Amino acid sequence: MTPTVSSPAAASRPDDGAAALSSSGSGRPRRLVIVGGVAGGMSCAARARRLSEEAEIIVLDRGRHVSFANCGLPYYVGGEIEDQEDLLVQTPERLRAWLNLDVRTGHDVVGIDPEAQEVIVRTADGVQRLGYDALVLSPGAQATRPPVDGLDSPRVATLRSVEDAARLREWADAGARSAVVLGAGFIGVEAAEVLAKRGIATTIVEYAEHVLPPLEREHAYPITQELRGLGVDVRTGTAAESITHGADADEVRLADGTRVRADLIVLATGVRPDTDAFASSGLELERGAIVVDEHGRTNLPHVYAVGDATVSTDPVTGARRPVPLAGPANRAGRLVADFIMDPDHARPIPAPLGTAIVRAGGMTAAMTGANRAALDAAGIEYTTIHLHPNQHAGYFPGASQLHLSVSFAPDGRILGAQCVGRDGVDKRIDVLATAIRAGLGVADLIDLDLAYAPPFGQAKDPVNLAGMLGANVLNGTVEVWDVRDLERVRQTHLLLDVRTRAEVARGMVPGVLNIPHTELRARIEEVRQAAAGRPIGVICQVGVRANIAHRILAGNGLKSSVLTGGMITLRAWLGDAADSYLVGA
Amino acid sequence: MTPTVSSPAAASRPDDGAAALSSSGSGRPRRLVIVGGVAGGMSCAARARRLSEEAEIIVLDRGRHVSFANCGLPYYVGGEIEDQEDLLVQTPERLRAWLNLDVRTGHDVVGIDPEAQEVIVRTADGVQRLGYDALVLSPGAQATRPPVDGLDSPRVATLRSVEDAARLREWADAGARSAVVLGAGFIGVEAAEVLAKRGIATTIVEYAEHVLPPLEREHAYPITQELRGLGVDVRTGTAAESITHGADADEVRLADGTRVRADLIVLATGVRPDTDAFASSGLELERGAIVVDEHGRTNLPHVYAVGDATVSTDPVTGARRPVPLAGPANRAGRLVADFIMDPDHARPIPAPLGTAIVRAGGMTAAMTGANRAALDAAGIEYTTIHLHPNQHAGYFPGASQLHLSVSFAPDGRILGAQCVGRDGVDKRIDVLATAIRAGLGVADLIDLDLAYAPPFGQAKDPVNLAGMLGANVLNGTVEVWDVRDLERVRQTHLLLDVRTRAEVARGMVPGVLNIPHTELRARIEEVRQAAAGRPIGVICQVGVRANIAHRILAGNGLKSSVLTGGMITLRAWLGDAADSYLVGA
Repeated sequence: MTPTVSSPAAASRPDDGAAALSSSGSGRPRRLVIVGGVAGGMSCAARARRLSEEAEIIVLDRGRHVSFANCGLPYYVGGEIEDQEDLLVQTPERLRAWLNLDVRTGHDVVGIDPEAQEVIVRTADGVQRLGYDALVLSPGAQATRPPVDGLDSPRVATLRSVEDAARLREWADAGARSAVVLGAGFIGVEAAEVLAKRGIATTIVEYAEHVLPPLEREHAYPITQELRGLGVDVRTGTAAESITHGADADEVRLADGTRVRADLIVLATGVRPDTDAFASSGLELERGAIVVDEHGRTNLPHVYAVGDATVSTDPVTGARRPVPLAGPANRAGRLVADFIMDPDHARPIPAPLGTAIVRAGGMTAAMTGANRAALDAAGIEYTTIHLHPNQHAGYFPGASQLHLSVSFAPDGRILGAQCVGRDGVDKRIDVLATAIRAGLGVADLIDLDLAYAPPFGQAKDPVNLAGMLGANVLNGTVEVWDVRDLERVRQTHLLLDVRTRAEVARGMVPGVLNIPHTELRARIEEVRQAAAGRPIGVICQVGVRANIAHRILAGNGLKSSVLTGGMITLRAWLGDAADSYLVGA
Repeated sequence: MTPTVSSPAAASRPDDGAAALSSSGSGRPRRLVIVGGVAGGMSCAARARRLSEEAEIIVLDRGRHVSFANCGLPYYVGGEIEDQEDLLVQTPERLRAWLNLDVRTGHDVVGIDPEAQEVIVRTADGVQRLGYDALVLSPGAQATRPPVDGLDSPRVATLRSVEDAARLREWADAGARSAVVLGAGFIGVEAAEVLAKRGIATTIVEYAEHVLPPLEREHAYPITQELRGLGVDVRTGTAAESITHGADADEVRLADGTRVRADLIVLATGVRPDTDAFASSGLELERGAIVVDEHGRTNLPHVYAVGDATVSTDPVTGARRPVPLAGPANRAGRLVADFIMDPDHARPIPAPLGTAIVRAGGMTAAMTGANRAALDAAGIEYTTIHLHPNQHAGYFPGASQLHLSVSFAPDGRILGAQCVGRDGVDKRIDVLATAIRAGLGVADLIDLDLAYAPPFGQAKDPVNLAGMLGANVLNGTVEVWDVRDLERVRQTHLLLDVRTRAEVARGMVPGVLNIPHTELRARIEEVRQAAAGRPIGVICQVGVRANIAHRILAGNGLKSSVLTGGMITLRAWLGDAADSYLVGA
């Protein structure tokens, strides 16, 4: 099959392009053109071929590679993925042989002519036009470039393409001894991890108050500590102001006045939809992202869009934002192909929950649904509970603690969950993502029949436990207070720490009354007198003993509530300030 | 608090016992007696205390230990759990201190007097009666004893108690060189694994045609192979007929006439409800298991039951059977306590799906919902699909194949799922168990937002892929045939193997036409002629290329269907017979 590229002049005639390339009798497009050959675009192409042997399917990509492993790039920099070939999941040749796809790399789509139903393509040979019956835009996102003097230094690289990764690996192989990573989002953290593991003195700089800003503060701290354990210098609440290019190395000057040497600099401060080429075509954009409906349709006839460059609605908060994640992009690409080929039977594209996961050293952090900041911003009422159960039976070797939080609405609807730990994090977040997608309430988590044997879980899985605690909160068996309210609760409550004396001696909140929970039944009058009519804020290590204490207090007519997540959550929330804030017994 | 045990004579008077121990004004029992201090019983006791500070809560257990790690016993035998202390999750002393529970070990409940509201308890001091306001029976299960001559040999042990595990470990420590495990269910496989890992020549004997009978045949075979890799001699389709006790070792004679030497014998042929003590009390039993309603109520007033000894209804097939699993028992115990203490607000006990998991060497096998045998027995129409995706990105180190099957109804309802592999098995089964519990259809699995980064999954997770394939089957995009129908399909179809010549040379089904899928478009007339009007059964390695081929055939007007799971499923289903059945090109 010969690529059909018409000249701009010829194709500007309305009787060419669109008319000549009209759909076949079945309503299916004769020619489907896809812009962007990674994730959503390639999923769409592959699915379209499976649904139609007849259609001409052309994939245009400005890069040298299609269908490459963009999520694997940091691991190639680090050397965990050894071969660059391994990043190339598919080649144009194989896509031709397997799926009869016409994949054209080095083809940069610089515009759309929706009237003519043509895309305008720049190649090494100049600018040409290509007609379409249906057009799918999957341009993805590009790195944002913050206003930093000297960002054009040749030692600065993004981490978006195989070429980016190859460059960074080359610098590292050539003996780079220091690195600065700008931005501590997912890619920044992955980049810092792999550079530090290569023995490069790495500094990571994040403008937000903690690494991985979408994580709750108390979940981010274990990741900060893990990065430090790898030798990463973590600088949060600050940003690069300028980069000075030097002969031996660059120097990055931060807003806090410090200077950091860098043999290489990774720019990972975020991404934005790569839609500049389409701005003048009449395509509806919302803060740069393509507006689509539930089948990926844009405002232009026969033009669809998927992936990082599209807007979607948060199913929990209703917020509209692009979700630059590979999973939703891949699945949306497939569903758009379904709609193009068989509109009467296609499923709608689900609104992505934003489930995401990152490895940092031996730790994993993952999240699904809305975090507290998003819920606050949307004005949604919620309770967040924290738990620290082991990922599998405590008596089985390798047991390690999960730090799990679940937010739910007053009607029980699960709104979001986050988890940090060394093992089993992905499983719990996937179960919770499934529960959210299915519309389960937090109490329904009690009833989940999760697989249990000692190497894999607990008879009451951490997710079941979250359900039990959530149900207790909903039905009033337990009342909780949140670490964010620490100072307020200190003002208004008697704080009762029910841990042992030995535990309390290693650090407690100033001013607490310490009565081990095993002594509480006998010393209840002592508590009543100390409370003097105030409610009691109960604290223990993880929340379990405080729940028991709360029930003892309630049984004795005392009003109390439990610090959700206990001292473990409190310490993580305080972070580096914990040691100076807490006092010994 | 002094244990209140009345003498049988005194308690037989109706004005003692029940009347004196009536419920408090709130409707809550003053005295809750729980029979059985493991799993369901102990969960019930702990929850009851959290809901009531006032109730007297007495836990009776005939054994020396309560709340021990029964699922951990095999790993103590193997030495992976080093300390016997680690198996004792709780002690009576700690349960008293933490929860004010009155736990009495060495108390064997030998009967109930429902009229008097008393249990009859045998201790070292004789038989006594103990009154209750509410009684929860959690007696669990006991090992079945098949009719094998010589089963009373002192070298035979079950694996149900800490004492059993201690005895087996002692024998192993003392230099046992050979072992026979009778029964290849979950506990039998775990026992064989740990014994073989200790270097003991181990034979496992299973009456069913394959190990782990609830697993599908094609999923069981990788476990058989893994056990063999550990040095286990796997004998299926046979059973022990007699055990001859010898001075040096026992000899186990099997139904197939072979004899196996055994320094120790593990009896793990299954369990039955441990309800003999209650048979004469008027308690309603169904094939030995206690009949309960959705709140654990038995037919006797104020008498509840939970756990392995109770009947529950399979939520998929409607079959009634006990489910001897720790997870459902633990959760049911808690829910029964909720009902006893606050009947107006208690959630019903969910019907357990039977989600289960087992480790065997480096492999894991897990299942949830109904298997094909259960669906066949219940007369439920279904399709089963098989997939073999990697557990995480193929380009990331450590990628390994999952073997996943999902069964669903014509309306899409997910009926069951099974998975075998080296990593990530538990996560996929937990997600699918959640989906089944939530009533999702197989196509809904497409939309699950599961956590993706290269170390954890794929942009299209194996569960998403199952949804895509399931949806294809439901909407007719793909038709599948099952390995169980191999001989029938060979009679009626042209079998078309679309793998490469090199792959086919390593074994193919006799009589197939081999055309690599990349050549299919060019050689379609060759297929049409060979088919001569017959439908075409397409085969590839895992199913992916066969799906592509199926769409090419359909696009050319040829009727075809795809062997679900491809040659990998076919080989596993054929098992040891594969090499003699398959032919080279």
